[in-house]
Amino acid sequence: MPLLVMKFGGTSVADLARIRNAAGKVADEVARGFDVIVIVSAMAGKTNELVRWVNDISPFYDAREYDAVVSSGENVTAGLMALTLQEMDIPARSWQGWQVPIVTTSQHGAARFVEIPREAIERKFAEGMKVAVVAGFQGVSAEGRITTLGRGGSDTTAVAFAAAFGAERCDIYTDVDGVYTTDPRISRKARKLDRIAYEEMLELASLGAKVLQTRSVELAMRYKVKVRVLSSFEPVTDTSGTIVCDEEDIVESKAVAGIAHSRDEAKMTLQGVADRPGIAAAIFGPLAEAGINVDMIVQNISDGGLTDMTFSCPTDQVPRAERALTEARARGDIAFGGLVADTEVAKVSVVGIGMRSHTGVAAAMFRALAAEGINIKVITTSEIKISVLIDRKYMELAVQALHDAFALDKAA
Amino acid sequence: MPLLVMKFGGTSVADLARIRNAAGKVADEVARGFDVIVIVSAMAGKTNELVRWVNDISPFYDAREYDAVVSSGENVTAGLMALTLQEMDIPARSWQGWQVPIVTTSQHGAARFVEIPREAIERKFAEGMKVAVVAGFQGVSAEGRITTLGRGGSDTTAVAFAAAFGAERCDIYTDVDGVYTTDPRISRKARKLDRIAYEEMLELASLGAKVLQTRSVELAMRYKVKVRVLSSFEPVTDTSGTIVCDEEDIVESKAVAGIAHSRDEAKMTLQGVADRPGIAAAIFGPLAEAGINVDMIVQNISDGGLTDMTFSCPTDQVPRAERALTEARARGDIAFGGLVADTEVAKVSVVGIGMRSHTGVAAAMFRALAAEGINIKVITTSEIKISVLIDRKYMELAVQALHDAFALDKAA
Repeated sequence: MPLLVMKFGGTSVADLARIRNAAGKVADEVARGFDVIVIVSAMAGKTNELVRWVNDISPFYDAREYDAVVSSGENVTAGLMALTLQEMDIPARSWQGWQVPIVTTSQHGAARFVEIPREAIERKFAEGMKVAVVAGFQGVSAEGRITTLGRGGSDTTAVAFAAAFGAERCDIYTDVDGVYTTDPRISRKARKLDRIAYEEMLELASLGAKVLQTRSVELAMRYKVKVRVLSSFEPVTDTSGTIVCDEEDIVESKAVAGIAHSRDEAKMTLQGVADRPGIAAAIFGPLAEAGINVDMIVQNISDGGLTDMTFSCPTDQVPRAERALTEARARGDIAFGGLVADTEVAKVSVVGIGMRSHTGVAAAMFRALAAEGINIKVITTSEIKISVLIDRKYMELAVQALHDAFALDKAA
Repeated sequence: MPLLVMKFGGTSVADLARIRNAAGKVADEVARGFDVIVIVSAMAGKTNELVRWVNDISPFYDAREYDAVVSSGENVTAGLMALTLQEMDIPARSWQGWQVPIVTTSQHGAARFVEIPREAIERKFAEGMKVAVVAGFQGVSAEGRITTLGRGGSDTTAVAFAAAFGAERCDIYTDVDGVYTTDPRISRKARKLDRIAYEEMLELASLGAKVLQTRSVELAMRYKVKVRVLSSFEPVTDTSGTIVCDEEDIVESKAVAGIAHSRDEAKMTLQGVADRPGIAAAIFGPLAEAGINVDMIVQNISDGGLTDMTFSCPTDQVPRAERALTEARARGDIAFGGLVADTEVAKVSVVGIGMRSHTGVAAAMFRALAAEGINIKVITTSEIKISVLIDRKYMELAVQALHDAFALDKAA
């Protein structure tokens, strides 16, 4: 029997009516001949309530107890979904993480899968069960404690099950109808993509297009799991949603697949840094220890033995970054003249696997921005991405100009 | 290290402030030198919400999924309680039923304990843990499915743990400060009992004094677990609450310990029943099959081969009882002239182990009721209890008159 994994996020199971709606989509796939593994999130808002309680008790909570508490929302949804399917005469049962058991590492709050044994669920499928409903986001450690995968972890659970069971496809039902060429709130010309490559999705996910959790895309890429992102609030057709797949399965061949943006970026510049071997390590070591997510890094050319070092990081990490660098200077580990933080910046990126074969993408990007009079503060590139830091007030303008420049409103 | 079991009901852990209050009482016992096993209920209202969802999905739900859903509230409280204790610098951890594991039968919704292994919890106590917080009301079946013990089951979990671990005492914290001679809302003269025997508590519990779940009292009696019922909203002293214990440990020796009442009773009379051997079985067999909880039974003397058969049952079961009897008549299994249901009755009972040695309790009871002009409709007696069915409108009057007649406002 072909097998499908279907995952429903918090807004898709926010109340009994929505659970019924989701169950209807599962029933449709069963009618098409699939055995289905359903992965569910907690009902919207439930996990936040639990997290708030834990934080109210102690900001320095025991992560093992945190996991025991916050994982309970998914258990409730799993049971309710199984009951709803049974009410539709579909043989279904729920599994909590420890019942499968979904074995993970002991890194509570950020656990990683060790093993997903198929025996228990496959035995039930063999006995006539049509749908296994599994609580997402959770697992159990070798010590028998409940673990969680970190926020958004249910996407990762879904992809991991699809990989473990060799599922035909992993359908991620959410509140948007797919992956767009850019944020539709910024450009009305944004177009839904029929397909997108893993690598592109990975860049878009990590750049702030919050459709899929980054780790779930990494996992899908590693195990070649075909993922479809689609809306749980619209009828499902053959062209619904966006398929995330291997680049070989993509027929379209544009240089650029989409434009990503992030408001949540700050630019920090260390002025008057001695330009000597090992200086980068001396600067970024303390930042890494302080848990700062440094993104872009640029070093200016040296001027009389001194240079400027510029990097970007999330805006809310600026105070911690400043403290880490000031303390490193106080310890004598580094020397610099000044430290300037610019929190009024934004990052705009063009992403596309086509860049590997198409030349001139960077030039076209810089030309489009220059035509709008937008000054570029920092540039970084990867094989399939070009990112620029610009004044935040120009962010929307830049996204729209680039969307036009690469004609993303038109299919290839 | 002496060990104490402390159980906190839903109102005692209704929010974070109350959990903190409860944790404070646990901390006091740890300071007195106890290792403590804390059994927690779900936060007040949470289980009802879950039950409502399940019933909304299907009135004919799969009890295994019901248990998986409704047990989640206790897991949340267990984690929050452990975190709160840790925040008070008390080494604590939470256990869900399957982690202990609390092994039960597979009767979902009404499971019974099979085994409570001590190893996992004792190992942690040996390592320095001071408090084990265990989710009440739940267990796990041999098939690895989550079970629940039925409503109020956390009391039973608490007593079972006290028995399994040989605890010094099992303290049940609730929203009343003990067991009273009668309902204080009916008689202002009601007096808190310092001690009450298991048998008496059992009669009072099953008669509607909803302080302790009946099964927990049965279990306490079987394993001689000393239980203390007390308020979580008052300071704890040596005389707090009511101790439920073996009758040998009771110094007071009154004939009557308390007066119980139940509004939820109906009287049903089958008129013109053939007085032949086997007639009682023919009548009460169909009632038992229909799940009717028949309480009192009275058969009148025979008049010309015909007799009347009267019994009582919960008011809401009257329609089902009528249907069962009418169907039995239609099948020709029984014959009767008429069926009269009187739902305007109430049951009042005097309970006391002292009745075994004191004579004249029944006479004193009937005299007190007669003095108030209250007509007795049905009488039943057991070794330590006399119950009467009377018109419901006299219930409060009867309770007050009996409380006075046996001078229950005064200690022995």
